[in-house]
Amino acid sequence: MKNYYDYAASTPVSQHVLDAMKPWETENFSNASSAHQAGRASSQAIQRARELIADKIGALPSEIIFTSGASEANNLALKGIAFKHLDGKGHIITSKIEHKCILNTCAFLESIGFDITYLSPEQDGQISPSSLEAAIRNNTILISIHHVNNELGTIQPIQEFGAIAFEHNILFHTDAAQSFCKCDIDVDDMDIDMLSLSGHKIYGPKGIGALYVRDARDSELVPLIHGGGQEAGLRGGTSPTSLIVGLAAAVEFYPTQAYPIEKQFLEVMPQFNFTRNGGNAVVPTTWSVTFHNDEEVKRFTSDCPWLISQGSACNALSNVASHVLLALGMTEEEARRTYRISLPPYRINES
Amino acid sequence: MKNYYDYAASTPVSQHVLDAMKPWETENFSNASSAHQAGRASSQAIQRARELIADKIGALPSEIIFTSGASEANNLALKGIAFKHLDGKGHIITSKIEHKCILNTCAFLESIGFDITYLSPEQDGQISPSSLEAAIRNNTILISIHHVNNELGTIQPIQEFGAIAFEHNILFHTDAAQSFCKCDIDVDDMDIDMLSLSGHKIYGPKGIGALYVRDARDSELVPLIHGGGQEAGLRGGTSPTSLIVGLAAAVEFYPTQAYPIEKQFLEVMPQFNFTRNGGNAVVPTTWSVTFHNDEEVKRFTSDCPWLISQGSACNALSNVASHVLLALGMTEEEARRTYRISLPPYRINES
Repeated sequence: MKNYYDYAASTPVSQHVLDAMKPWETENFSNASSAHQAGRASSQAIQRARELIADKIGALPSEIIFTSGASEANNLALKGIAFKHLDGKGHIITSKIEHKCILNTCAFLESIGFDITYLSPEQDGQISPSSLEAAIRNNTILISIHHVNNELGTIQPIQEFGAIAFEHNILFHTDAAQSFCKCDIDVDDMDIDMLSLSGHKIYGPKGIGALYVRDARDSELVPLIHGGGQEAGLRGGTSPTSLIVGLAAAVEFYPTQAYPIEKQFLEVMPQFNFTRNGGNAVVPTTWSVTFHNDEEVKRFTSDCPWLISQGSACNALSNVASHVLLALGMTEEEARRTYRISLPPYRINES
Repeated sequence: MKNYYDYAASTPVSQHVLDAMKPWETENFSNASSAHQAGRASSQAIQRARELIADKIGALPSEIIFTSGASEANNLALKGIAFKHLDGKGHIITSKIEHKCILNTCAFLESIGFDITYLSPEQDGQISPSSLEAAIRNNTILISIHHVNNELGTIQPIQEFGAIAFEHNILFHTDAAQSFCKCDIDVDDMDIDMLSLSGHKIYGPKGIGALYVRDARDSELVPLIHGGGQEAGLRGGTSPTSLIVGLAAAVEFYPTQAYPIEKQFLEVMPQFNFTRNGGNAVVPTTWSVTFHNDEEVKRFTSDCPWLISQGSACNALSNVASHVLLALGMTEEEARRTYRISLPPYRINES
């Protein structure tokens, strides 16, 4: 798509992925729950996908629960744990700069009696581990902090969050929609108990994602979608074989090098006066830039008629300043001069 | 797929649908929530799909909430209403022969304090309107009875259910996964307040469905998936444009005539001794057949090595007799001699 610089909102579906999906739409279109041979073949394809995805984050195949995307996975993680504590309720820690699906889920849980602490980021977009530790209470049942911020590209110190959660015997969930495949993730090394991921941020299809759940079968997570026993009983609904196979293909063929458009972008940007937000620990493909004045905004939007977002896509239509930018301490006027430019993602070499 | 007689479990994706989806995977892969022109084009494609689907059931476009499928739609309907009554709780009426996603949702709601009445079917698979009326209590908040049974093909008298619900000022939901497009539906004539539908039962993709919600924006339905404001705030998550467009194409190009395989099937079956279950009001493409003895089962499975299900696909792997067949009064032994044979669906001329 010409002038598209909004890859953090969505990526194209790669040819590898389309090719992998095709046979499961037309040749073997059976229901993976059917007991006959075609159903079993579909079920086996799903199992291979599960193994490949699990392997990517150091998990077991049985710990991958397919969902319709990261939003559902995030809802399942938070409500799934909260509903286990519906009688006694409890306390959940998250941050002010989570995706709206986390914040709106937390608002709902607050409305039915849960306590929520929303940690503020530092000015560079990082959540400090010490602020997390200070927020822990006796009745804290869950910590949910994202890995890479969708507007800033900031990489959070989730290994430190995980260690703190583990030390206090509290479950740790991370929304990895913007980091899965891009950044190294090992759920054991990072003490992650639940992790959400998305297909359409990694050149896979829209409408598919997953929640990693440590020891899923013993997790007693309350399903969001009760159903016919699919996904270890944790997520009902006919398994969308082609989408699942497509998600696995997206993981398998995820690019390891920057796209040429990134070089062009890096050459263009120094012509403008702007500040890049999000600190030093940022992914190279997501840029939150605040132009220094309205003239610069005009010059940029005129010279570079790019398809980009102010804030994230999910905030784009709401016509209010991004909650992430405001949480960094920006004024509404500064937020209005701020754009997210996002390039085709690839695997970052972090070592 | 050779010898495939399991169309009630899942259908192929038609070429019309694949063609309609393609451009939204590769050409315009933008996020429909993005404010730029590509995002708007994606959003407009979704709106056109919404109009087409709404029109099919006599609804308004704003009353169609896209979900990942009928299971999610059913969960959203039941939990969405129940969670409005979390403080005072209440009573819900459903039937013993609903899909597992309804029954398991009801079991969950029972576990947190709701009362559920499970109506028994008559021997022909019909739920009698008088049994529904008799079950109504002062605190009944919802009636949820499916339209066409997934194992029997029995068509339920939902217009009568709707009239009873309307008269008592109780919300009426119907799971139309097995009837949408096949049978005529008009949500006003039938007094339906919520209706679930699925893509992969009508030659559309797996992973997409919808919930019709009367006056959705004023329904105060509690979202199952909280998110970034998509679907009138009732269902979060990036809209899967290609799946939604594919669902609409499936509706638009839904076949109006029987497939040749049906004629062959009707010629073959009289060779065997069996009873067809589900009464006289059944769809022509779903056959629940109980062979008269084990010899007949052997002869049938040997002569007709078809890909079929015992019970529904969702029960297929559980190795217990179908709850639907047991509710009809069958013994476990009779249920074991019973198979569901399902043919390619098409629009039934009911007039």
